[in-house]
Amino acid sequence: MQEMIRVAVDAMGGDNAPDEIIKGAMEAAALREDIQILLVGKEELIREKLKGYTYREEQIEVVNATEVIETAEPPVAAIRTKKDSSIVVGLKLVKEEKADAFVSAGSSGAVLAGGQLLVGRIKGVERPPLAPLIPTEKGVSLLIDCGANVDARPSHLVQFAKMGSIYMEHVMGVKNPRVAIVNIGAEEEKGNALVKETYPLLKECEGINFVGNIEAREIPHGQADVIVCEAFVGNVILKLYEGVGAVLVSKIKSGMMSSLRSKIGALLVKPALKETLKSFDATEYGGAPLLGLRGLVVKTHGSSKAKEVKNSIIQCVTFKEQRINDKIKENIVREEG
Amino acid sequence: MQEMIRVAVDAMGGDNAPDEIIKGAMEAAALREDIQILLVGKEELIREKLKGYTYREEQIEVVNATEVIETAEPPVAAIRTKKDSSIVVGLKLVKEEKADAFVSAGSSGAVLAGGQLLVGRIKGVERPPLAPLIPTEKGVSLLIDCGANVDARPSHLVQFAKMGSIYMEHVMGVKNPRVAIVNIGAEEEKGNALVKETYPLLKECEGINFVGNIEAREIPHGQADVIVCEAFVGNVILKLYEGVGAVLVSKIKSGMMSSLRSKIGALLVKPALKETLKSFDATEYGGAPLLGLRGLVVKTHGSSKAKEVKNSIIQCVTFKEQRINDKIKENIVREEG
Repeated sequence: MQEMIRVAVDAMGGDNAPDEIIKGAMEAAALREDIQILLVGKEELIREKLKGYTYREEQIEVVNATEVIETAEPPVAAIRTKKDSSIVVGLKLVKEEKADAFVSAGSSGAVLAGGQLLVGRIKGVERPPLAPLIPTEKGVSLLIDCGANVDARPSHLVQFAKMGSIYMEHVMGVKNPRVAIVNIGAEEEKGNALVKETYPLLKECEGINFVGNIEAREIPHGQADVIVCEAFVGNVILKLYEGVGAVLVSKIKSGMMSSLRSKIGALLVKPALKETLKSFDATEYGGAPLLGLRGLVVKTHGSSKAKEVKNSIIQCVTFKEQRINDKIKENIVREEG
Repeated sequence: MQEMIRVAVDAMGGDNAPDEIIKGAMEAAALREDIQILLVGKEELIREKLKGYTYREEQIEVVNATEVIETAEPPVAAIRTKKDSSIVVGLKLVKEEKADAFVSAGSSGAVLAGGQLLVGRIKGVERPPLAPLIPTEKGVSLLIDCGANVDARPSHLVQFAKMGSIYMEHVMGVKNPRVAIVNIGAEEEKGNALVKETYPLLKECEGINFVGNIEAREIPHGQADVIVCEAFVGNVILKLYEGVGAVLVSKIKSGMMSSLRSKIGALLVKPALKETLKSFDATEYGGAPLLGLRGLVVKTHGSSKAKEVKNSIIQCVTFKEQRINDKIKENIVREEG
């Protein structure tokens, strides 16, 4: 019998739960027979929704969780008190090796804190980074770290570079990924204390293709595949990307509506423009993995629709098939030993 | 006799020097009779270019400077060795009070380093921040600091908030400007060590309208008028703004060229789109002031055209008329005393 890849899915998390989450999970299951989905959340509700689908029974399991952690709740407290929430129950499935991975569109803070508190780190990993994919002119880059642990040390950044490199090579299929560190200039001597200390360590680091500093301006041009930075800077980059993109697109749309002439033009360019903007949308590629844990935790956008959920589940499959955590272990242990 | 406002202009700095620089300076002089321009650079070349203009003699002076600092040169060394460069000569005019302000599109590093080394700080100002205007959905915000001094302390950020607030109120005409600090969440307890220490100081700070944390996503939506951050983060924000904007616009343009139908549409939307994108272009408002110096230094984009140069000179006039440095002095001294 073929080995099943078991992915727990937070059916209650995100703006479009449970409908879009369940839809995405069912689409992933339909794509591959070796995926087993564990839908975590209010059992009765989920079973009701499942009535709308045809599927192989052995692929879909429902795991009851009666509580839901809301986005506004303080994450650590929520993890500690809502023991029967979909996030806590889902993460415990990974910890107890009843699932290989957990996908959630719920509270980022709770997923991050819970991932560390409940699933635990791979031995030798100092900090588990959150590493979203961001769109570029050429495809996507991995931005590592965008998590909740600010004030990182140089050794953390070196581990981020290694883990990010493994992920891009083996999950995203980028050969010999270019690793760069975010800095305020291209020259080696530039930067703040953290970057100045980290630069020589990355330069000496074996097994990664370090290409030096990257200025923020070059990130959208796809000048590196793995963009290393500490979480505060990563968070600013990730959110500004979204903000500038959203404002520009809305400005352009309203610009097109400003005259009759431009309105007619807008009708003609609309289909082509839609395709173009889709190519600048990282959700096409799946969610953000929290790397370095004993198991995989993937955070998808709060606004996730079925497609992002489906892609995130497929991402988990590749992660497992490519034995990413074994590769991280080998790499980190080799370094530490 | 009316008092003249004297603005030294680096005729040799930037990609479009000297033509666009001189053109912008002449346009500013034509706008107001009380502006005196000191064109700094290779005298012979400048005099040759001036032949193409009609102007009042007493408004235009040429100050010879035989050297040019290139963008790639290490800034501090360049300032020290090229004593007859347009940047050094221009900054010295400010130091010696022969000019009220200096505008340059040349090497950012040299202008920043030179501003501090040659012009000197207002007593009590710990660090002079570089504060560019960035475009938002609603107009512009002041991003303070984007300079070269990384690893700031909380007291620096508090001074940035005060100086930025004065600038936005009295130069940009924003009543009671909203001041926010860049953070990775909206809640008070979020952030790295620097932000956590600075937040309560800003909250207590009199004379500013502190509205709390701002997430990077909200910056393009114009949720605050003065965006306070340390220089590393500010630099990332500024450059990512440019990068994401450039890539999105180029993607949209190529998307419009992808089919015959969309090409026709593109012709129709082009004029409206051009207007829209212009409204999302901060160069319309002038350059980035380096605040807290004994005199004003304004850095414009390396790619500045006449319009940005002209607007930057007008900015210097408002700065002088509104006695911004007196206001900064009063504010900083009151606090220190």
